Amino acid sequence: MNYIYIMDMVGTFVFAISGALVAIKKEFDFFGAMVIALVTAVGGGTLRDMMIGSTPVGWMNDTNYLIMIGLGIIFSVLFRKYIQKLSKTMFLFDTIGIGLFTILGLQKTLGLGLSPMIAVLMGMVSAVFGGVVRDTLTNEVPLIFRKEIYATACLSGGIIFLLLDVLGLQNDWSMAITVVYIMVIRILAVKRHWSLPIPFQR
Amino acid sequence: MNYIYIMDMVGTFVFAISGALVAIKKEFDFFGAMVIALVTAVGGGTLRDMMIGSTPVGWMNDTNYLIMIGLGIIFSVLFRKYIQKLSKTMFLFDTIGIGLFTILGLQKTLGLGLSPMIAVLMGMVSAVFGGVVRDTLTNEVPLIFRKEIYATACLSGGIIFLLLDVLGLQNDWSMAITVVYIMVIRILAVKRHWSLPIPFQR
Amino acid sequence: MNYIYIMDMVGTFVFAISGALVAIKKEFDFFGAMVIALVTAVGGGTLRDMMIGSTPVGWMNDTNYLIMIGLGIIFSVLFRKYIQKLSKTMFLFDTIGIGLFTILGLQKTLGLGLSPMIAVLMGMVSAVFGGVVRDTLTNEVPLIFRKEIYATACLSGGIIFLLLDVLGLQNDWSMAITVVYIMVIRILAVKRHWSLPIPFQR
Repeated sequence: MNYIYIMDMVGTFVFAISGALVAIKKEFDFFGAMVIALVTAVGGGTLRDMMIGSTPVGWMNDTNYLIMIGLGIIFSVLFRKYIQKLSKTMFLFDTIGIGLFTILGLQKTLGLGLSPMIAVLMGMVSAVFGGVVRDTLTNEVPLIFRKEIYATACLSGGIIFLLLDVLGLQNDWSMAITVVYIMVIRILAVKRHWSLPIPFQR
Repeated sequence: MNYIYIMDMVGTFVFAISGALVAIKKEFDFFGAMVIALVTAVGGGTLRDMMIGSTPVGWMNDTNYLIMIGLGIIFSVLFRKYIQKLSKTMFLFDTIGIGLFTILGLQKTLGLGLSPMIAVLMGMVSAVFGGVVRDTLTNEVPLIFRKEIYATACLSGGIIFLLLDVLGLQNDWSMAITVVYIMVIRILAVKRHWSLPIPFQR
Repeated sequence: MNYIYIMDMVGTFVFAISGALVAIKKEFDFFGAMVIALVTAVGGGTLRDMMIGSTPVGWMNDTNYLIMIGLGIIFSVLFRKYIQKLSKTMFLFDTIGIGLFTILGLQKTLGLGLSPMIAVLMGMVSAVFGGVVRDTLTNEVPLIFRKEIYATACLSGGIIFLLLDVLGLQNDWSMAITVVYIMVIRILAVKRHWSLPIPFQR
């Protein structure tokens, strides 16, 4: 479907920007910025595809992914001063991307005949692993392990998507509802400073 | 064989606990604890399967692995006070798991027609790589590169297993002897503070 | 071709030494040194092969790779005092290895029917990713993100190789020219302290 493809591209673009912005703080050179942008944008899908055995990994079969990442880097260089002002817009697209990547990863995994439980997990991997590698390569403890609730939003969103599917809802509606759910959870989480409890805290 | 499957599950359970316990010190949230437990338990087998091309990776085809990991996390949350008291029991299961993962990884690799040398290496990867990723994700220099001798126990254990096989010993006996060998080496190493020499030390 | 295979082996040997030398500073034990040497030497090709779906990964089908890595480690232990004096020779072989790994990775990717853009990227991954994993495992921010221009040399070298091929040049000549180009760029970069600009620098 056309609009899914467009959202996939927008998600890739925004994820690439998120990677390039981390390269700022670390004062990486252009090559480093390129690698971090690439890894952030396609790292999740790459790990998923290697694990489920769908190789060559997805983004290799469609040059548009690389083009969107290139545009994301150029955009970051040209408009870095404005990006901070647009942080709400960026956050919105980022959240849409996360929701969409979750569902696309889930569907691809189901399509290979794997179990729904694995599919939910791979949906989450698709959405969040790029950020984990970004943080690991830049020598940070992945942010997601400390402060973010959105991986939980992806997991619960994946389960909701499967439930809607079992209930016989049309695919488009299931996707729309799930993406909106993930967005709402994440936006509420940020606004209200939700976080998961830390187990065993002393 | 049934008892191999049971030991595989016990190993997964214990490795998951070992991951969850690291999440304590780092004060990760529940999601982070879940990821670290998962990665520690199945990370080694995942890398092995991706490298030898046995995809989807093994644990995806049997939901029991995820269930054992879930139980490991719950167990860690409920009984964390007692786990320290049970440290000897935990260490025992952990060591059995390592020995068993080594042999299972070795056999899977041989089964794909790869050379014995590669099989020994992949046996070791199966047993220790989960811990390496756990340490890398939590921003530590992997423990195994500094203090532990057990990777060496896995490598030599793998070679012993192959030798026993060449000598015509029945598979069950080769496995039992190898697991016991790896356990004895590791237990002696910890008791007597064995460690490998550091090359080039000034 | 025979000389390509020899250069591949020499590159593997030199990369293994480069890994073992990092293990010195970090005071890893022998096992740690072995792992870092292995990862540095074959890490790039391993990631490339897992991503493009050419599994089991290449070095598993030819035991000579492991033998060259073993020799590299032994060489590092025996001659560590002389290696620093031979640093120019080492740098030369390292640079040849990088150039060659770039082209071999590029050709393997093209051979699977993937696009030239992806092939150039995978050529670069083959050449530089081993060093990235080495740095990540030893808890350093990968050097390549900060100071080195050689990844850029690999990328531009890959593009030059493709252009020469399109122009109808014989494969051997395209390879020779590209390897020399990558060597010249890297040597000049080191001599003249070239580096990429850092985007967004304040």
